[in-house]
Amino acid sequence: MESRPLDALNQARNQRVIVELKNNKQLVGKLVSFDIHINVVLDECEERVDGEMKRKLGTVFIRGDTIILLSME
Amino acid sequence: MESRPLDALNQARNQRVIVELKNNKQLVGKLVSFDIHINVVLDECEERVDGEMKRKLGTVFIRGDTIILLSME
Amino acid sequence: MESRPLDALNQARNQRVIVELKNNKQLVGKLVSFDIHINVVLDECEERVDGEMKRKLGTVFIRGDTIILLSME
Amino acid sequence: MESRPLDALNQARNQRVIVELKNNKQLVGKLVSFDIHINVVLDECEERVDGEMKRKLGTVFIRGDTIILLSME
Amino acid sequence: MESRPLDALNQARNQRVIVELKNNKQLVGKLVSFDIHINVVLDECEERVDGEMKRKLGTVFIRGDTIILLSME
Amino acid sequence: MESRPLDALNQARNQRVIVELKNNKQLVGKLVSFDIHINVVLDECEERVDGEMKRKLGTVFIRGDTIILLSME
Amino acid sequence: MESRPLDALNQARNQRVIVELKNNKQLVGKLVSFDIHINVVLDECEERVDGEMKRKLGTVFIRGDTIILLSME
Repeated sequence: MESRPLDALNQARNQRVIVELKNNKQLVGKLVSFDIHINVVLDECEERVDGEMKRKLGTVFIRGDTIILLSME
Repeated sequence: MESRPLDALNQARNQRVIVELKNNKQLVGKLVSFDIHINVVLDECEERVDGEMKRKLGTVFIRGDTIILLSME
Repeated sequence: MESRPLDALNQARNQRVIVELKNNKQLVGKLVSFDIHINVVLDECEERVDGEMKRKLGTVFIRGDTIILLSME
Repeated sequence: MESRPLDALNQARNQRVIVELKNNKQLVGKLVSFDIHINVVLDECEERVDGEMKRKLGTVFIRGDTIILLSME
Repeated sequence: MESRPLDALNQARNQRVIVELKNNKQLVGKLVSFDIHINVVLDECEERVDGEMKRKLGTVFIRGDTIILLSME
Repeated sequence: MESRPLDALNQARNQRVIVELKNNKQLVGKLVSFDIHINVVLDECEERVDGEMKRKLGTVFIRGDTIILLSME
Repeated sequence: MESRPLDALNQARNQRVIVELKNNKQLVGKLVSFDIHINVVLDECEERVDGEMKRKLGTVFIRGDTIILLSME
């Protein structure tokens, strides 16, 4: 069977991912969960701007429609 | 069973959360309720701009599509 | 049963609310009705910009997707 | 039974309303019809910018997603 | 029976209409067809900017979500 | 039976069309296929900016929500 | 049977594609999977700005609503 995009997210569970947002910020953290809207929960999340760590955010719920992409480290 | 993003919001009920909006404002308050659109009600809500307290807002209904993320303190 | 966001709006019926719009304006008035899209009707509505009263608008129908938040006074 | 937002539009049929658009223009005219998307038809419509009459437009179909609010005169 | 917004478009079939787009351009042409998304086909279409004719476009399919309004001449 | 907007696209299959995008670019190519979201595939596609050819793109899948209009040459 | 836009993506599986995003960036990589929202997963992905390689991103999940177009090399 051919793979689907959510399969890639499923394989990234419990691993560190980088989430790029439409406001040019990046959130880096452990992928806890996601749904079909690409709402995402990250643990041990840090915010980066231009690659530089800005803030520690702990556990974060990110609304899917603000996400450009997720990359797996 | 694998966790879903709304589970994280459910665990944050009655706790203080920070809601970041698309207009760069932050709302901090106690999470009263949410739904699948990520419409959110906060109690004892304060608005912050660049981390600085601006206004006390009391009970606030926030429309989900203006939310970037919620972080749990 | 756990509360839902629309419950908070329901409790605010016939009371004065402040509606913040995506264009930075505020509408203040008595909440007459709302629906699941957060379309809202206010009575005795006034428009404020930066907290200053600008215009009396009477009865106003506000399209939900232009709303950031409603706060209960 | 509690009133719903579209009830207010229904009462405004055949009356003059002011429609504020997301592009800062105002359209003033007689409300002929509307639907659940808040698509609206106005008759004897005039466009105003900053309260000043700019153009007569006759009968106009306005797509709902460009509307911020309708106020009843 | 009360009229609905699409009735107004139906009456404008085969007549000249002005379509205002969110990018401030106007398209003028004969209304060939439309659907519930307000996707529209115009024949003998001309583009106008600030009321001035810019280009002849022939037959044009316009995606509904780029339309602010249609006015009937 | 009255015509619908997608009929115009259907007649344009295998013909050259100009697709105007919300980012002010134009794509010109042979219309291979489209769907109800107005997702479009063009063959032998070229990108134009202000009417000037910029790049040859080969076969291109265009997401419907970035399209303003398609014109048939 | 007439072809549909997703057929073109299906033929591009396992091949290199260029994905243009609404933020003017380009992602180049091997197309692993896609769905009806045009969510896309690329392998061996690189980000380009103005045609110049900026970053290697590995495996990337791209949310469909940030995509303007995909071109097949």
